[in-house]
Amino acid sequence: MSEQTVNGVNVSKLKETIQAIKGKPSLADFRFRIVNKWQGGGLNQTTVKASHGAGQEFPDRDGKFTMQADEPPILLSGDKAANPVEHLLHAVAACVTTTAVYHAAARHIPLEAVESTLEGELDLRGFLGLDPNVPKGYKNIRMNMRVTGDLSEEQKQEVVQLGCEFSPVYNMLSKSVPITVKLAS
Amino acid sequence: MSEQTVNGVNVSKLKETIQAIKGKPSLADFRFRIVNKWQGGGLNQTTVKASHGAGQEFPDRDGKFTMQADEPPILLSGDKAANPVEHLLHAVAACVTTTAVYHAAARHIPLEAVESTLEGELDLRGFLGLDPNVPKGYKNIRMNMRVTGDLSEEQKQEVVQLGCEFSPVYNMLSKSVPITVKLAS
Repeated sequence: MSEQTVNGVNVSKLKETIQAIKGKPSLADFRFRIVNKWQGGGLNQTTVKASHGAGQEFPDRDGKFTMQADEPPILLSGDKAANPVEHLLHAVAACVTTTAVYHAAARHIPLEAVESTLEGELDLRGFLGLDPNVPKGYKNIRMNMRVTGDLSEEQKQEVVQLGCEFSPVYNMLSKSVPITVKLAS
Repeated sequence: MSEQTVNGVNVSKLKETIQAIKGKPSLADFRFRIVNKWQGGGLNQTTVKASHGAGQEFPDRDGKFTMQADEPPILLSGDKAANPVEHLLHAVAACVTTTAVYHAAARHIPLEAVESTLEGELDLRGFLGLDPNVPKGYKNIRMNMRVTGDLSEEQKQEVVQLGCEFSPVYNMLSKSVPITVKLAS
């Protein structure tokens, strides 16, 4: 049988992956890892480390990607990179988009374009500790997704809904996730 | 009075900012914005847009930074960039680190180095929709922070605790945040 690709996603392999995991659920265990170093003021740099998944280690990814974060002058640093809460918006957009694209592919819904604008509203009094009733993070995150293709309005809505329902990052932010931070000994 | 810098953070300006916001809380309203475009398969690109804060717009940041996201071959894409859940770990590390550095600076705690390793554990059955009881996102995120400097163990613990207590990204993930995704008309 020939391989079938929808939205740039190899749907034949996606279905093989699903069958393999149904047969052996431990193949679904993935681990993603990074290391981050402070570089002074608001600047720091992340390096992606080897990841694990489908019963394998992926040492070739160790050091393959670096990302910086900084703060703009109004937040007292040199603006050499997007800041942490902008990187968070990137993680949301990237995850909801990829999830929508893959789940649409699995349902043979072909997409031409997906473009999203995101805005997060932050009251700095939370970060500064000036008012305990003000959230430290965004008060809210709003994402508008434009979905282009030969699709009905209902199918476009379905694509957005699939993106939210199955996106790891969307689910972590909307439902919370256990996160532990420890001082290394 | 001369300006005072601790950990690369201008503490004099930080204190001026706090005083200004106490006098006029609307100065604390910040908005961060991005646009993200799908580029086929698991690949997409974010561009940071103009931000708003302290009663000003910052149009010079519009288009200044771009970040890509992709997936490795085991997740059916070309591995041209870190994936969305690795970008999420970057946002966590960057935010907790910057928060620790700034709050330590405000308390005149000088740091020499901060380095963190993070790991997130993800069961792909959630994303694939194979088991509704499996979380879609990370089951947990673990961060180990190494804090170096002429500090007691208690001060190092305080630095880690400040990072968690006031970090926007840590607080959003550990407590959830309202997030709305809409189909653009």
